[in-house]
Amino acid sequence: MAELADAQVIFTPSGRRGRVPAGTTILDAARGLGVDIDSVCGTRGICGRCAVVPAFGEFPKHGITSEPSHLSPFGDVEAAYRAEHGLADDRRLSCTARVLGDAVIDVPPESQVHRQVVRKDLDARPFQLDPVVRLHTVDVTPPDLATPTGDLGRLFDSLRAEWGIDGLRADLHVIRALQPALEKGSYRVTVAVHGGRDLIAIWPGFHDRAFGVAIDVGSTTIAGHLVDLTDGSILASAGVMNPQIRFGEDLMSRVSYVMMHDDGATALTEAVRKALDGLLATLVNRVGIKRAELLELAIVGNPIMHHLLLGIDPTPLGSAPFALAVDTALELPASELGLITHPGARVYVLPCIAGHVGADTAGVILAEEPHEATDLTLVVDVGTNAEIVLGNRDRLLAASSPTGPAFEGAQISSGQRAAPGAIERVRIDRDTLEPRFRVIGVEVWSDDPAFGAALGAAGTGVTGICGSGIIEVVAELYLAGVITADGVIDGSLAARTPRIVPDGRTFSYVLHEAGGAGPGSPRILVTQNDVRAIQLAKAALYAGVRLLMDQLATETVDEVRLAGAFGSQIDPLHAMVLGLIPDCDLSRVRAAGNAAGTGALIALLSGEARREIEGVVRRVEKIETAVEPRFQEHFVEAMALPHRTAPSPNLERVVTLPRRATAGPDDGAGPGAARRRRRPVPAATTTGDDR
Amino acid sequence: MAELADAQVIFTPSGRRGRVPAGTTILDAARGLGVDIDSVCGTRGICGRCAVVPAFGEFPKHGITSEPSHLSPFGDVEAAYRAEHGLADDRRLSCTARVLGDAVIDVPPESQVHRQVVRKDLDARPFQLDPVVRLHTVDVTPPDLATPTGDLGRLFDSLRAEWGIDGLRADLHVIRALQPALEKGSYRVTVAVHGGRDLIAIWPGFHDRAFGVAIDVGSTTIAGHLVDLTDGSILASAGVMNPQIRFGEDLMSRVSYVMMHDDGATALTEAVRKALDGLLATLVNRVGIKRAELLELAIVGNPIMHHLLLGIDPTPLGSAPFALAVDTALELPASELGLITHPGARVYVLPCIAGHVGADTAGVILAEEPHEATDLTLVVDVGTNAEIVLGNRDRLLAASSPTGPAFEGAQISSGQRAAPGAIERVRIDRDTLEPRFRVIGVEVWSDDPAFGAALGAAGTGVTGICGSGIIEVVAELYLAGVITADGVIDGSLAARTPRIVPDGRTFSYVLHEAGGAGPGSPRILVTQNDVRAIQLAKAALYAGVRLLMDQLATETVDEVRLAGAFGSQIDPLHAMVLGLIPDCDLSRVRAAGNAAGTGALIALLSGEARREIEGVVRRVEKIETAVEPRFQEHFVEAMALPHRTAPSPNLERVVTLPRRATAGPDDGAGPGAARRRRRPVPAATTTGDDR
Repeated sequence: MAELADAQVIFTPSGRRGRVPAGTTILDAARGLGVDIDSVCGTRGICGRCAVVPAFGEFPKHGITSEPSHLSPFGDVEAAYRAEHGLADDRRLSCTARVLGDAVIDVPPESQVHRQVVRKDLDARPFQLDPVVRLHTVDVTPPDLATPTGDLGRLFDSLRAEWGIDGLRADLHVIRALQPALEKGSYRVTVAVHGGRDLIAIWPGFHDRAFGVAIDVGSTTIAGHLVDLTDGSILASAGVMNPQIRFGEDLMSRVSYVMMHDDGATALTEAVRKALDGLLATLVNRVGIKRAELLELAIVGNPIMHHLLLGIDPTPLGSAPFALAVDTALELPASELGLITHPGARVYVLPCIAGHVGADTAGVILAEEPHEATDLTLVVDVGTNAEIVLGNRDRLLAASSPTGPAFEGAQISSGQRAAPGAIERVRIDRDTLEPRFRVIGVEVWSDDPAFGAALGAAGTGVTGICGSGIIEVVAELYLAGVITADGVIDGSLAARTPRIVPDGRTFSYVLHEAGGAGPGSPRILVTQNDVRAIQLAKAALYAGVRLLMDQLATETVDEVRLAGAFGSQIDPLHAMVLGLIPDCDLSRVRAAGNAAGTGALIALLSGEARREIEGVVRRVEKIETAVEPRFQEHFVEAMALPHRTAPSPNLERVVTLPRRATAGPDDGAGPGAARRRRRPVPAATTTGDDR
Repeated sequence: MAELADAQVIFTPSGRRGRVPAGTTILDAARGLGVDIDSVCGTRGICGRCAVVPAFGEFPKHGITSEPSHLSPFGDVEAAYRAEHGLADDRRLSCTARVLGDAVIDVPPESQVHRQVVRKDLDARPFQLDPVVRLHTVDVTPPDLATPTGDLGRLFDSLRAEWGIDGLRADLHVIRALQPALEKGSYRVTVAVHGGRDLIAIWPGFHDRAFGVAIDVGSTTIAGHLVDLTDGSILASAGVMNPQIRFGEDLMSRVSYVMMHDDGATALTEAVRKALDGLLATLVNRVGIKRAELLELAIVGNPIMHHLLLGIDPTPLGSAPFALAVDTALELPASELGLITHPGARVYVLPCIAGHVGADTAGVILAEEPHEATDLTLVVDVGTNAEIVLGNRDRLLAASSPTGPAFEGAQISSGQRAAPGAIERVRIDRDTLEPRFRVIGVEVWSDDPAFGAALGAAGTGVTGICGSGIIEVVAELYLAGVITADGVIDGSLAARTPRIVPDGRTFSYVLHEAGGAGPGSPRILVTQNDVRAIQLAKAALYAGVRLLMDQLATETVDEVRLAGAFGSQIDPLHAMVLGLIPDCDLSRVRAAGNAAGTGALIALLSGEARREIEGVVRRVEKIETAVEPRFQEHFVEAMALPHRTAPSPNLERVVTLPRRATAGPDDGAGPGAARRRRRPVPAATTTGDDR
């Protein structure tokens, strides 16, 4: 046994070390050395959050030996905890185990407050928990006649003494609940402290459940993750339709509704809040917790959803100068949004960036961290508007481009939302011009003999084309030479294939004959108007990207992330063939999933992340496409397929582009001239595992 | 004309002086020198708050000459203001008048932010405004496409630049109202800033109206003053009955109601809030303003009213250790109490002192300032409980004594509330034992031949005795020898006067025969039980006072203030004869009016006063009468008339006390022995102007 005087303690993985008086609990030693160990119950051996793993043996590098006898024997409190909750053989509760001699103590990740959260399912980067809501169990001195102080004051005294928390203020509902909780808990209570400052909840006795929801309020869908705030784990994810759709499919038609109806803003606000509340209900029911266990929400949304949710009339966002009422992050009681949660629950709303670049984009930035990158990173979140972020740790620019809803399947003759039956993948044979495709909900391609049966089994027909299918069919038609670089469906090919059919003065391509592959399937055409709609949308997107590249005086980007539901579905190669995105090493073009929602999740779980995004948003350079004269120039140039603005060496490494049918401004000269003189080659290279 | 270089400016009454560049506005010069000049509109010449009076002539002491030509000529802005709002001939608007040469400038009280408020009608001490809610007019930079910041951020920028206010946070409803206000006001708005920190209201253009209400929530009556927050003037005062009375006359029966009914606390909370809301309605209607112009409330109340208003179950206050849920001051949105005001209105609730000594006593302390006194000051607020504060700037003690409701007319056979028809003044002839009295609502005494007619004219009879009348009749009966020092009605006097009548085994005194002085008047007796009830009440009060005197080891007090409705009505001499209060120079016994309400008013108008009372309350020594063994001793001793605890030299200087009928513990010896051997002398000295 080591001498009972002074012991050296080394904590891993932090490497923090120091000498403590023998008899010090491991938790006190850790706190004294600034080692991050979690605890809810304080030193009561109830919560088990502070479990550590002592390491035993010689540690010559540190000049110490750590032996089991250097810690107090496994005690009653630990035995009781092990019996009731389980505790691995090698673990000790640091709040009760004492250091008697030199010891090396490992703090496992799950016992750290600031543990890492890794979420592969969300395409999310690993990030560090920095809980905004913390639970603390305390024993409060009972009142006595001699010192007639208020119970709240004595609770504050305990929180100061046991947890070192000072300067707290209590919500009124907590003050109301205080005395019943003290009585029921025999003067032991657990409180929830928000931001180290607000006492937002109280429970009798020990309590270690706290939940939150990260929410992305989209124009079409409101999606949420229900999260255990104590460890960052996602317990359920769900989405509901945004019922505002009945007031207008796209954002601008909703703003028009508001402008034309006296109670328009109120109606839209009520609709979105009700849907959000329904989402909360769905999530808590799925996990089997109570609404009153929701203590924190984090919300992202585009500027108009942001304003409507907050009850702010979005009319000024409908016309220049697109002024936001507020662009800073907000923190407010959930009750102010009419949401049913714990009465002390707070909502954190991420900051907006500009009139067209909202809190959703702030979420995307937080999730993708372009501001941390050394390489030039382009993040594109494509919806009705495309939000574009370009930059790296030195400079970060953001803009919004009015792509319109074509990418979402609107304004397309056979367009539809991504749903079972929608064509999502297309390949067109460069020789025969015959298509094959895949529809959502069916595993096999349409040229597979099993396709018809699989479609029947899925209970659907071929119902339309969704966003990613539209990108692919137009790109494939271009690669097959059916569409010229100017976007014209070449009617002369009608001689080669019955799939080219006249449509008034233009031509269409028959992607799928009515009923051909399943009962009730309509005829699915790609019309000249469809191609034009896609050209307009992709030109707007590319022009926006190009504008930001101009600002950075760059011709290339190093990294591309495609965020959002559509961005995650589209194939990078086809996107590049069409000219949605600038040329880039294809291996560095990645889908980012619902990055906005992931950003909300990170903000929900980390106060540090909130400060980070608030700082980043302040220094983002906002580019307003509407006032940049070059936007129009880029837009016109970008109408062509793929685009005429810059060479695409990365693209050309993997695909052979058709010769341009019409001359561009730099035709016949410059670095792109050679490739443009090449003949189209029908067989493109593969684009992935889905061929 | 002075040279246009540098000018000396001296401001009175502050005496602050300094040199400013010629051409500086007087307001800028004042701000630079830390001179307190009010302004709402900034420098726009709209509000007129900054009007000053230049002084002209030689000021040899200061070595300067101040001439009209040392200021810029009276300008268009001033002329416009004079034409529209009036501006005295000698006044200049300091925001537009410029200093061109040496000048002496007087800032009149009404142009100072921290002006003195003198309220004789409230018996209130003069106090200094330190507005918690300030109005500021600003011009906000309109949004433009090039800098897509939020409107709120630009508003904050303007407030920082024009008013030096930083670190603001805005209520959500302000953010909602922001863009419409900016639009309507052409980007000029006025905001209300609360506590230098919260943006709680916004109006288009210039706005200089802001109102508040100071409220005393009593067990019986809820009283409020509607105040103009911009200058501290009281515009209306009103009171409503506390509808909780239907749940129990006194506090303890209301607590019992709560304990015996599941929704009891909710019902009582709703009742008091509804009444308070009704009071607000009455006040705003009387003045002709809107509810939405109420920006700030300040509230006092005893601990049980305090808790019930806040929605806190008061059950723990009903039994030892009488634990308050919260004793610190609270600041919360008025909407949290369900009150209809401006949505940004805040409520300031004064701190409580102990389980029986509430925010009302904090208000009394703030109004009477015993903590600022050099002399030992006793402040007594008599209601169902008596709150007692004793001390001076060195030490301050507080306690509550359970007097019961006798002083309010309850538990008295003919007792009633102070209302027309109630006997409030009584004199009894020492020889004939005949009474004369005055009733509320009638100017003449009952022995005046015009009394009957006056009573008729007032439309009342003689209906009962109110609190002050009870004190006087018992004191007068004692002075006339009808009641012994032990409080026994001397039945042997029935031989001398028909007014002494048997009543079972004891006797009563007939103060007024039925119908004698007006239609429908009942017979009004003072029974032996009535005397006992008063003895118990006054003994409790005195014992509490005595306990605090013990703590300070004093036998005398220098100053007595009688607060509350009852305290303001009772005659100091009679109170001292009865032994309600300790011996004191009668000229230093004063009524304090509704000091609790006055304290609420001061807190409403002064942030400095809030900090003051919060600090004082923390250092008040709380004495719990229930656990002090000496309280019982004092109580028993104090049952006698006047009391047996200490000599009363001040009282004996103005009135001759009857000889004691029974021997006290120190009878026959000590300084009081001689007076106790004197015979009663019928004619007492006068007690004031009502005889």
